[in-house]
Amino acid sequence: MFDRFIPPKRILMGPGPTNVPESVLSALGAPTVGHLDPSFMTLMDEIKVMLQTVFNTQNQLTMPISAPGSAGMESCFVNLVEPGDEVLVGVNGVFGGRMVENVRRLGGKAIVVESPWGQAITPQQIATALDQHPKVKIVAFVHAETSTGVLSDAEGICKEAQSRSLLTIVDMVTSLAGVEVNVDDWGIDAAYSGSQKCLACVPGLSPVTFSDKAIEVIKNRKTEVTSWFLDKTLVMAYWGNNAERGGARSYHHTAPVNALYALHESLRLLLNEGLTASWTRHRNAHLALVAGIESMGLNMLVDIEHRLPQLNTIKVPANINEAQVRNDLLQEQGLEIGAGLGSLAGKVWRIGLMGPNATIERVTICLDHFSQALAKQGFDIDINKASTQARKMHSSLQ
Amino acid sequence: MFDRFIPPKRILMGPGPTNVPESVLSALGAPTVGHLDPSFMTLMDEIKVMLQTVFNTQNQLTMPISAPGSAGMESCFVNLVEPGDEVLVGVNGVFGGRMVENVRRLGGKAIVVESPWGQAITPQQIATALDQHPKVKIVAFVHAETSTGVLSDAEGICKEAQSRSLLTIVDMVTSLAGVEVNVDDWGIDAAYSGSQKCLACVPGLSPVTFSDKAIEVIKNRKTEVTSWFLDKTLVMAYWGNNAERGGARSYHHTAPVNALYALHESLRLLLNEGLTASWTRHRNAHLALVAGIESMGLNMLVDIEHRLPQLNTIKVPANINEAQVRNDLLQEQGLEIGAGLGSLAGKVWRIGLMGPNATIERVTICLDHFSQALAKQGFDIDINKASTQARKMHSSLQ
Repeated sequence: MFDRFIPPKRILMGPGPTNVPESVLSALGAPTVGHLDPSFMTLMDEIKVMLQTVFNTQNQLTMPISAPGSAGMESCFVNLVEPGDEVLVGVNGVFGGRMVENVRRLGGKAIVVESPWGQAITPQQIATALDQHPKVKIVAFVHAETSTGVLSDAEGICKEAQSRSLLTIVDMVTSLAGVEVNVDDWGIDAAYSGSQKCLACVPGLSPVTFSDKAIEVIKNRKTEVTSWFLDKTLVMAYWGNNAERGGARSYHHTAPVNALYALHESLRLLLNEGLTASWTRHRNAHLALVAGIESMGLNMLVDIEHRLPQLNTIKVPANINEAQVRNDLLQEQGLEIGAGLGSLAGKVWRIGLMGPNATIERVTICLDHFSQALAKQGFDIDINKASTQARKMHSSLQ
Repeated sequence: MFDRFIPPKRILMGPGPTNVPESVLSALGAPTVGHLDPSFMTLMDEIKVMLQTVFNTQNQLTMPISAPGSAGMESCFVNLVEPGDEVLVGVNGVFGGRMVENVRRLGGKAIVVESPWGQAITPQQIATALDQHPKVKIVAFVHAETSTGVLSDAEGICKEAQSRSLLTIVDMVTSLAGVEVNVDDWGIDAAYSGSQKCLACVPGLSPVTFSDKAIEVIKNRKTEVTSWFLDKTLVMAYWGNNAERGGARSYHHTAPVNALYALHESLRLLLNEGLTASWTRHRNAHLALVAGIESMGLNMLVDIEHRLPQLNTIKVPANINEAQVRNDLLQEQGLEIGAGLGSLAGKVWRIGLMGPNATIERVTICLDHFSQALAKQGFDIDINKASTQARKMHSSLQ
């Protein structure tokens, strides 16, 4: 009927998924075992410990949701928000907007603190809004906005929430493993991430973590969680956070066994490298990329102090067809970079440096192809200059 | 920190996941591409066409949910049930019970029609209950109860619902590809399945299909769908059911790219074999297994007319430690069979014959090991008799 699908070779330097290392793909394709197999229980235990390390938390309720990051987001909101609850949401891009949608659908009241796309949500903004809205229960925001390439000050924002004894929900889809993440020190109550960004695993899983304080709030809900699939009190029993039941695992749903093999391997690779080494590698690749981009006369969208190393938004210069550039890169070089979303559509490119692509080798390949694609449209450019500048910058960081 | 995980070799003859063919695992482990890559769009289109064929439907809204079967179940209920709606639910095992939970959590009113575990839900039961409850909006039931091994008459039940112009939601997690499924002819409005049963793919995806009538109901909801992740009006736009928007796909969530490679390959294998050939193969393997089991003096839980070929519940005889049998099979032979759930815990074994395990070769391997495990506990048995009887039966069916 249809032929076997053979995917084309791609270098994935968009907003994610990123390229997945060979050993992770090989783990993924290993023979399936049962989701209650003793060997699989060990795998789950190890994944939990490694996720705690990566999130920098002791939270017992730390586990991957068996679905993408948007389900991870929903798992935080559906468990913590009850009808009538006020939730302060920082919105500076697509994913903050999605948080507002989550709150509204659950019958909560979203109080929106907005920054223009490309700018951060600041602790000061949050503090001011909280002073005006004394009934807020939860502060929610996006640590690393994938739609704009902005990193907000999670520690500072959570401090404002903590000083008022409020709960926090933090989107760490793109931040985890790419920049510093410190769930316990920063006092985060619920956070979610995605497997396909800086963890360099295949897409489809969403690591989440909930503080004991969050669990207490969930246990004391007045209304039932509307989602059976995402109800944390049920999922906990399968992922082993059930000391009350004597530690036995109860069947909840059939875990995505092979995807969890892959996550285990990607976490192993990450921790073998070391968390701070990974953060530094992402940062250095980013600084090299920016040096190259700026040497071409192009401009970054985001101010230097709020740039997200793993997602770089570059302003499209006048008289350049941005879609044509992306199309040329994909069709001629097999290189995927991202388009702008929402109000940034057509105005920026998004270049991801995530996982194995946060290296000077990938940065220079990207810059060379990118320069050629621009030159093809008549942009005045010295083809090899950008990658040379990038290499210089990268050397200076070692 | 931890070693690379190497899964043990298992023959998976429990309630699922089943063993996954080599070519599906190999597709799974192919290099990741972007979820908006043109090649991936083609893959999605082909998956959709193949799922329509497997469900026997022309439904435009036919696609895999990026999460397990329980999320597929939730996607049907969360989109079709509004607060106050009456839903008639047939309950004859775990999964019917979960449907009731879904209805309750969404603020609906579940009217339960119960059959004892191990028995079917009948069209007559449904008709009687519908006559008593004239305000029912939806009839929901499980086609193939994985917890008990019972197949209910989906065609007959749906006819009762259709004659009253009601909607139907049908759980086809274990039935799809293993027994006849005819979504359009039977007049089903929403159905969901799982990738890890008779489709013989890895666990983690839930194929779903919605009729045009169901879509109309969703479009005319008075309240917003509480789940952003499962809101069909949003997912539709990504899976191409968006003629209104000119056919362009809009980004919803990052699809589980590699899992979809695997689903594509498993659907290809299934359709190359042919749907009716697959149904027949499952039935013949089942009849062979039953012949073997009964030749040992053991009894099936379910009456002959309601037995589900792909999931066989066998009563545990007196003086046999059922958990020890499962443990011996797993530890000594690498053979997984299932335990009873709920009120059947300790009383039955569940032997799955799904996908590549619905063959006489796997049936006889299972019977031989099973006989040995029983003999070890002093059960009076002629070790090779069961597999000989199974082979005889199977030959007679060719």
